[in-house]
Amino acid sequence: MKEVRIGLLGAGVVGTSLLQLLDKNREKIQRHYGINLQLTTIATRSPGKLQGKTNVPVTDDVLSVTNRSDIDMIVELIGGTDVAYKAVRSALENGKTVITANKALLSEKGRELYPISAKTGAELGYEAAVAGSIPIIRTLRDGLSSCEFEVICGILNGTTNFILTKMEQEAWDYSTALKKAQDLGFAEADPTFDVEGIDAGHKIGLLASLAFREYVSFASLSVKGISDLQSLDIQSALSLGYRIKLLGISKRSSAGVLTKVHPTLVPLDHPLANVMNESNAVFYKTKEADSGMITGKGAGGMPTASAVLSDIIYYATRLGSKDIAKENNLFPEAKAFPEPDNLVRYYLRFSTVDKPGVLAEISQVLGRHNISIASVQQKESTSEPVSVIVVTHGATEGEFQKSLQEIDTMSTIIKQKTVAIRLLEKL
Amino acid sequence: MKEVRIGLLGAGVVGTSLLQLLDKNREKIQRHYGINLQLTTIATRSPGKLQGKTNVPVTDDVLSVTNRSDIDMIVELIGGTDVAYKAVRSALENGKTVITANKALLSEKGRELYPISAKTGAELGYEAAVAGSIPIIRTLRDGLSSCEFEVICGILNGTTNFILTKMEQEAWDYSTALKKAQDLGFAEADPTFDVEGIDAGHKIGLLASLAFREYVSFASLSVKGISDLQSLDIQSALSLGYRIKLLGISKRSSAGVLTKVHPTLVPLDHPLANVMNESNAVFYKTKEADSGMITGKGAGGMPTASAVLSDIIYYATRLGSKDIAKENNLFPEAKAFPEPDNLVRYYLRFSTVDKPGVLAEISQVLGRHNISIASVQQKESTSEPVSVIVVTHGATEGEFQKSLQEIDTMSTIIKQKTVAIRLLEKL
Repeated sequence: MKEVRIGLLGAGVVGTSLLQLLDKNREKIQRHYGINLQLTTIATRSPGKLQGKTNVPVTDDVLSVTNRSDIDMIVELIGGTDVAYKAVRSALENGKTVITANKALLSEKGRELYPISAKTGAELGYEAAVAGSIPIIRTLRDGLSSCEFEVICGILNGTTNFILTKMEQEAWDYSTALKKAQDLGFAEADPTFDVEGIDAGHKIGLLASLAFREYVSFASLSVKGISDLQSLDIQSALSLGYRIKLLGISKRSSAGVLTKVHPTLVPLDHPLANVMNESNAVFYKTKEADSGMITGKGAGGMPTASAVLSDIIYYATRLGSKDIAKENNLFPEAKAFPEPDNLVRYYLRFSTVDKPGVLAEISQVLGRHNISIASVQQKESTSEPVSVIVVTHGATEGEFQKSLQEIDTMSTIIKQKTVAIRLLEKL
Repeated sequence: MKEVRIGLLGAGVVGTSLLQLLDKNREKIQRHYGINLQLTTIATRSPGKLQGKTNVPVTDDVLSVTNRSDIDMIVELIGGTDVAYKAVRSALENGKTVITANKALLSEKGRELYPISAKTGAELGYEAAVAGSIPIIRTLRDGLSSCEFEVICGILNGTTNFILTKMEQEAWDYSTALKKAQDLGFAEADPTFDVEGIDAGHKIGLLASLAFREYVSFASLSVKGISDLQSLDIQSALSLGYRIKLLGISKRSSAGVLTKVHPTLVPLDHPLANVMNESNAVFYKTKEADSGMITGKGAGGMPTASAVLSDIIYYATRLGSKDIAKENNLFPEAKAFPEPDNLVRYYLRFSTVDKPGVLAEISQVLGRHNISIASVQQKESTSEPVSVIVVTHGATEGEFQKSLQEIDTMSTIIKQKTVAIRLLEKL
């Protein structure tokens, strides 16, 4: 039987879940794939923590593992871009297959790592790096390999989707929902990466690169997170028939690839609107097969470990095969372009004084900028500021920016900066 | 560059779409996969119809293609189980990779074909046989290969989902909606395979076999279609918060595998409820990664052809590789078991006379069989029969059968056979 010797780097939540899965599935993998997965050694910062949990030798020296000649495959679950980078680089240089769940590493250092992988022929699997248990990487590489993608987008960060769900369902403010996510282990002590959209940005960049076979760098993305969203906007959007989701969106046209992350009002009848809690979803549109969507658990030790193990199995079956084409990650750079002159729609919440004629003044400015109003909502209020909520029809991004600048300086009627959130565009 | 020589059998809607896709993608496939796909010959019943549409030699002799020693891969798009069976059998015996979109063939003849494939090492790809453009076969084989499946189910027949959508949205009766589907080319002149659930049965059997790695035969399925559904039931279910979908459902427990096809009331907040028109969806639940769902176009020439082409690419990269484990289709037979004694729920529509006390008599019978009522709906009516609609709480299948037998013989109050439709069970 083919034996594949594995070195595991990192033994946190995902790493220890993977240890369980490997134990449980060893015999099944032998039976179904004719492969004996042999976990040879584990490297972790605190080897003592694994005492009694495994019979596999444990070390704290990562590079001693990636340099071992008797290891075929390195599974990197350290995270971050420092030690993980050195380890993955070393493993690829040594010709070892690398399986990683590290989206930050690939997003920030992929352009350095992919050429090494291409040179030594070491394959690089990263199913677990994007959208947890959703097998979107395999789907892009194999399942939909014949398709020409026009759009790929999705809910790619479980933490922020959980926070948005709680802000809606419990009417909590942002900080209460964040605290809950931290208590449940869904959010880090420093939540910046998640809540500011950086993690989603890393992921949509990786997905767009694979879907379009053009490299979409993180630097080319515009990224906006959810930390300034208010419960009031989430509830108001809902009453207008929309749910606010943090979406990563990438669209390809003849002008190039437009990729971005921002909170978005999604119509309730769109399938992305009904993806709740820590679930993730990837929505795509192709020329040949129209649109489709995959949903699943986006976070958690076991869902992520199962994606790692599926990757291990896939690349283990390919390991040592000389006559199979290696997978490609070296795509030409995509031509990024800023928001084009397409018509976009906005949800606008104006915080105004409570006096007659305010709505007339606002709508005059909007009208001068060719922005027409689709719906207006103003609830009775006993204190200022009064919230006037407008959902617009389509206009250009430029006209919106100009009109909001103008309105926000009308100090006789406007009490606070206007909140503007994009509606989901036609995908 | 690796050259893969292909023989195409069948040049109907999917076949001619595939010809277009092959032409359009040839250069891209060379660039991305290092494979030159060479369409060598086409076999079709009416070679004349292809005149002017292709430069590839055309024949009407299927076996002359499968017997050619210079062909590596056969793409079978003939359909049915007669000529297609002979052709696929011949191709596999000759050691050629076979790509097929033919679920009936695999469902009815798979147990004869798989051993030939295993013996000669010829691989068999059938992504396009199930759920059109949804890459569920690759997902089960690779993307979720580490997962232990508990449930797989879905909307697997585009024709019936289109008919159900029209019956709801246009309030059409079944035969009007079927006619429309036939006019649009979504339904065959003889729609039996689709509307009686046979096609969905073939597909859920194939999916269950792959998900559980146990062979689920079509003979072990219970299958019920949509041809006796009435618009009234679709509208009534909707007003109660459910949408009626034709689901293929397969569940695995220690007792065995339960697989079936029947119309099902799906709660509107379940993701399967919002899959409309000719779209398909596959919902699954695994021990490691909880639940997930994939949606996409379930029918149509181009979506199906794109699934065929993705399969061609996948198996072309593996062709000729001696040291890669062949995929397995030879699973041990699943222990099938009938509906267990779990509690199930029903939507019941009683057609009754218009007199006092009817509901009391019905609910007495239900009560004697331990069936309690969750909700009742009776609209004012000017003519008999009156429709009394009951949604029940959970009871055993046996108790339902007994109580309905009893009620339907109460000729003083019941005018027509009671309509009983299952609610979606806890998955």
